Parts: sequence; C-alpha cells; structure tokens
Amino acid sequence: MDRVEIAVLGYGTVGSGVVEVLNTNQEIINRRAGKDIHVKYVLDLRDFPGDPIQEKVVHQMDPILEDPDVKVVVEVMGGVEPSYSYVKKALLAGKSVATSNKELVARHGAELLKIAGENRVNFFYEASVGGGIPVIRPMFSCLTAEDIDEVSGILNGTTNYILSKMTFEGADFESVLKEAQEKGYAERNPEADVEGYDAGRKIAILSSMVCEKQVDFESVYMEGITKITREDILYAGKLNRAIKLLARSRMQDGVMYAMVAPFLVENDHPLYSVNGVFNAIFVHGNMLGDAMFYGKGAGKLPTASAVVADVVDAVKHLGINIRIRWSQEKMQVGEIKDFACRFLVRIPEDCLKKAQEAFGQTETVDAGVPGEIGLITGVMREEDFAEAAAKLPVINRIRLNG
Amino acid sequence: MDRVEIAVLGYGTVGSGVVEVLNTNQEIINRRAGKDIHVKYVLDLRDFPGDPIQEKVVHQMDPILEDPDVKVVVEVMGGVEPSYSYVKKALLAGKSVATSNKELVARHGAELLKIAGENRVNFFYEASVGGGIPVIRPMFSCLTAEDIDEVSGILNGTTNYILSKMTFEGADFESVLKEAQEKGYAERNPEADVEGYDAGRKIAILSSMVCEKQVDFESVYMEGITKITREDILYAGKLNRAIKLLARSRMQDGVMYAMVAPFLVENDHPLYSVNGVFNAIFVHGNMLGDAMFYGKGAGKLPTASAVVADVVDAVKHLGINIRIRWSQEKMQVGEIKDFACRFLVRIPEDCLKKAQEAFGQTETVDAGVPGEIGLITGVMREEDFAEAAAKLPVINRIRLNG
Repeated sequence: MDRVEIAVLGYGTVGSGVVEVLNTNQEIINRRAGKDIHVKYVLDLRDFPGDPIQEKVVHQMDPILEDPDVKVVVEVMGGVEPSYSYVKKALLAGKSVATSNKELVARHGAELLKIAGENRVNFFYEASVGGGIPVIRPMFSCLTAEDIDEVSGILNGTTNYILSKMTFEGADFESVLKEAQEKGYAERNPEADVEGYDAGRKIAILSSMVCEKQVDFESVYMEGITKITREDILYAGKLNRAIKLLARSRMQDGVMYAMVAPFLVENDHPLYSVNGVFNAIFVHGNMLGDAMFYGKGAGKLPTASAVVADVVDAVKHLGINIRIRWSQEKMQVGEIKDFACRFLVRIPEDCLKKAQEAFGQTETVDAGVPGEIGLITGVMREEDFAEAAAKLPVINRIRLNG
Repeated sequence: MDRVEIAVLGYGTVGSGVVEVLNTNQEIINRRAGKDIHVKYVLDLRDFPGDPIQEKVVHQMDPILEDPDVKVVVEVMGGVEPSYSYVKKALLAGKSVATSNKELVARHGAELLKIAGENRVNFFYEASVGGGIPVIRPMFSCLTAEDIDEVSGILNGTTNYILSKMTFEGADFESVLKEAQEKGYAERNPEADVEGYDAGRKIAILSSMVCEKQVDFESVYMEGITKITREDILYAGKLNRAIKLLARSRMQDGVMYAMVAPFLVENDHPLYSVNGVFNAIFVHGNMLGDAMFYGKGAGKLPTASAVVADVVDAVKHLGINIRIRWSQEKMQVGEIKDFACRFLVRIPEDCLKKAQEAFGQTETVDAGVPGEIGLITGVMREEDFAEAAAKLPVINRIRLNG
C-alpha cells in the first residue's frame, strides 16, 4: 500500500486524540483510505519527551509546508491565529486540511474553501460542529435535494449537561455549574459555554452551510443559560417540555434568523430527550421533513474520529476538490426583534389581569411557585413581546419551540 | 449550466416522488449538482395520459441504454427482476445508478458496486435503508475512522407505529394492525413488515457495510412482532423500557450476529424515544461511542429526496468512481443459538421456584398481570435460555437491550 504523510498542528487534547485514533484503528483506516496514513510531523511549541511522537515534533511550520510528501495537514490548535495563516499556507502549498477549529471555520471557512478549490485540494471541518457526530458532510453530500428551512442544534455539551442536571435533580444553575467544573465538564472560565458563544460559532457555520453564504458569528443573536432558574424548570415540567439551549437557524417569511437561546422544547420533539453531554442536530427540509443527528458533541476521541474521517476523505480525493458551496458573500440575517414565537412569561400573581391585557390571548400555567403565575403568549414578534413585557414586573421569560 | 440527462425506471410512488422532488427543488438541486438535471425517460409498463411526464414514457430499457446522453439511471421499480438486469446493463453501459431497492441491494449490492468500479461510474443506494435518513453515505464517508461494533436500527415504520400505538393506547396487536391497514400505514398483506423481513433486508445491507463483506438476507435471524401482547407492554412499562423491533448487527466475542427481533429498550437509550412511523439507526464505534441518525424511514418524498441526493452525487462525480467497500466474499455470521443477552421471561406465578432453579440468578418483575410473574435473567446464550425455558410453561419471552 502507498504511504501518505500527514502533519498534525497542535498536540493538545484533540491532536493527541488524532494520533490515538490513527494508532488504534490503523488497519481499518488504512484499508478505507486505500493508503498507509503516516504522521510525519507534529507541530507544537512544547516537546513531549518520552512520548512516541517526540521524534516527529517540530516547532516551525516551514518544514511541513516545504515537504512535498505531506499531503494532508490536520489543524487542531484552536483559535484564529496562527491557525488561519498556517491553514492558508498549507492549502496554497497544495495540501488538504482537516480541522476541528470552529472559530477558524466560522470566520474564514468561505475563503479557505475557495483557496482549496483553486488549488485542487480539500478543506474539511467535520469536527468543528457536533464533535464526532457526522453533520457537515451529510449536509453537503446527503441533504442536497432539500430546501432546508430549519437547523436547530443542541451544540454545547456543557450547557446541556447543566440543564439536564437542573431538570432531573431540581438543582440550581450555580451549584450544577460548580459541580460540572469540579468534574471537568465545564471550564474554569465557563463564559463561552454558558453565554452561548461556543454554540453561536457552530450555528454560524451550519447557517452558512444552509444558505451557502457567509453568516458571521457576530450576526448570531446569543442568549445563554445563566438566567435559567429552578422555577423555570418547574414550569417546563408542568408544560411537558424541557429547557434546551438551542442553536438555531430558521427561515421565517423568507428571512433567515440565526440565534442561540434557551427554548422550551415539547416532549414529542426529537431534541427533547437529548440529555447530558450529548449533542444533536435537528434539520427540517421541505421534502424530508424532520431528521436528526445525535452523538458525542465533544471529547478527545469522538472529535478526533471526525478529524481522521476527514483525513481519510482527503486521502481518497488527492488531486480532486470536493466542492462545498459557501461563498464569501454576506448573508442578510434577520434582526432578532422581528423573530416571532410564543413565550412563557412569569409574572407576580397580582399582575395577571394587567398581563392578560398587555399580551392579548394567553393561557395561564400554574407550576406551583408561590406568588406568581405563568402565561403562554400567542406567536409574537420579539419587539412586540418586549414592549408588552416592559409594562410589567416580569420574573423571567423563555421562548417556546413550536 | 450544462445539462445532464437521467432516466427513471418505475413511475410508482417513489418514481413519481423523484420527479416531484426534482421539480419542486429544481433550482437548489441544479446549483448543488453544478448541472441542469433533466429527466429524459421514464420507464414503465403503463402510460400516464395527462401527466407531464407522459411524453417521456418508454416501455423498453434499450432506448435508455443506447442513449449516450443518459448519465444516471434511477431504479425505483422494486423487486429483483428485472431491476437487477437493468441496473447491471446500465452500469456496464457507463451510467451511474441510484436505487431505493433494498431487495436488489441486499442481494446484489456487492457485485453491482464492483461493476460500477470497473466502469468508472457509481452505484448509490442511500434510500434503500432508512428512507430519507442519511445513513449509507455517512457510513462509508463519515465513520471511516471507526471500528463499528454495533448497528441497531428501528428500520420499519409500520411495526414501530404499531408498537407505539400499543404502548401509548394499551391496544392489542390485531386491532392496531387493522387500524394501520385502514389508514394505509400497513399493507393489506403485512407479513414483510410484521415478520421482520423488510427490516431484515435493511440490516443485511447495513451489516455488509460494517464488515465490508456479503451478509446474506438469509443469514439474518428474524423474529417479528406478532407475538407481542398488551401484557408484554405492561412489563415493558414496569421496567421503564419500550418494546422496539430492532434490526441489529452486533459483534460479540469477535463474531457478528445479524438479527431482527423485538427488544426491551431502556429509557436512557436514544432509540427509546423513537416513536410512530419514525426510523432511527443507532451506531456504536470504538472511538465515537454512541451516535444515532433519525428521521422519516419511508414515504414518497423523504425516500425520493434520498434518491435525488444520490443523483446529485453521481452527477458531481461523472467519470469518478467513489469506492464503497463491500466485497462479494461471504461473511461468516454467528448462529442465533450462540447470541447472548438478558431475557424477560413471563411464567405462571406457581412456577416461580422451578423457574428460578432453571434460569439461575434472576430478578422478579410484577407488572400486575394476574396469575403470572416476570423474571429477568442474567446474560444467557439463546441455546441455554431455550433449554431452560423448555422445562417451563413460558407465556412469552423478550430480549433485553443492554
């Protein structure tokens, strides 16, 4: 079997996972790739004395770029720089790239795909969204007959773990977060997760895939889970719903809305039962109807498995660019104020009459929380909802999915 | 945009769906394919006066085979003959083929893939398993870094609908089947569905994809849902499980077992909440862990959408064979008697002591069914279970998943 050399940029969690996956499933992977995949370089600032890859460690990108034997570069360093420069140079040097770097892909995906096309190589990024769950490739190679009007994902395992714990154990946000941090499921600085920024980068990528134009991370409306309380969970239970942080891209009256926010998901929706650290991506197409992809959205080996699958595909397509449609043209994304949905709004009991006047047609929900009452509004634009809510001492409000 | 001609063999439910999908999403599909996809011929024994495709109808295969403009042939007639002959001739004539025909694929998939490879065309069959759910392509293009030790699917919508109805409404098998037939969810002759043959063909295909060798339909152990009763559903509820007809391929001690049978699925398993006519395919890989693909497993438009996606991929790869590994070499599949799992066994109350002696370590389950008791056995080989059960007046027995 012919040998093909690859380089791994970054020997952190995912990078060492890539080496582990390649070693563990070597025979299967090589058979499927039709070539003997061999790691020639590992780029890292550090040395790894005692690690079998130590002899492959380089501290500079140039040897990799200059080595014509290296056909595929794996970028798993994270962050925009120097990842972006390295990836661009690799593509220009005629090497395919597989990356798990959502920040890089969200910001520069369209440009890097263009460069890959011009250089008859491939830029793959399956692991940048949903970790080990196949979703990027199914979108560009399986759902090609579909007009997709919704992609809604549970794309962040940390927040889903926290919300599941709050749901099943009646715990509050702060204590579950603390426990998650102790167990290593949440970062010391959890902002990127709990404020929805991580999921926001991923939905920016998926939204771009859907409309085939550039949806900037900055144009994604983001609301995290820090304001979700134990009482909200009681209301959810009463409504036979679960609170999920959804990263979603949805067409409404011909306009695409991209957002991350907690939603009350109904119990017959496939996302309802996605619990713990699992992720899932729900897609709705005009011919297919509902579909969902489920699995491990993070973690060393699942993520590395997706990266290696990209390497295999790159090796199978040496010299052939697989066209992924994502132009640099900016997509006009709708403003959140125009997005319409139903809301659960919690208000003090004695404001019921005033609230019913403000929100129009509503249903009341009594979740047994003393002194307050919940109302389910009709479908309202965010702006109209906010205007009505401003007149009231609202305790909290959560959007309903469907 | 260049035009590419295709032919549709069979203008039944799926065939007319293919034409409908192509018409409805024409612009999107052509953009993604990079070519203007045009139906030149529709092969059918019938004529369709008044239908816009009438002028394209031919009654013979030869004009299609002899027309060099036809690059892709869609086979949606079903059955092995004449489908097999037509598909083979089309591939030999240098035309790619997309099919939804599970019988054809289960029986001749390996040979047709080989012929496609030799003729630098493609043989795609995404719609043959799981209807609109992307699963075949994810298996050969996404999970390539995985050593897959289990594929378990809910692959038949009719039986899942019946079991869901029995679960949620406490109805019995016969009455739900009758209702399903009246609604058109079940065939007049429901044998292929309720006895597990339909799911058996699909798991034969998926098993072949996993081991990359030929798993014959005839080597799949099949047990349907006709013996599942209202009382079994009560036991399932008591155990916090749901009865699902699983089509499964599983490695046990290095041996692959392929089967279709009702299983008691635990409530934290992703297949547990797959209800009604929905299908799902659960996959376990050694790096990825659990993953699942969910959606519409049947129906005109979802199935047609998968066929058209195959057409798009074929059009994008004219002159390039995408290698799908599935050799004609027969896979040695384990005999059901050696398969091991836990069982729920229902026996008359007064046989409890005798049963506990026969099955060894067990747990009792009281589902409130008068005069009887349930036992959960330890993990037992089928043969050992059967031997122990033969000594007792067993009312019913169902395997446990996990």
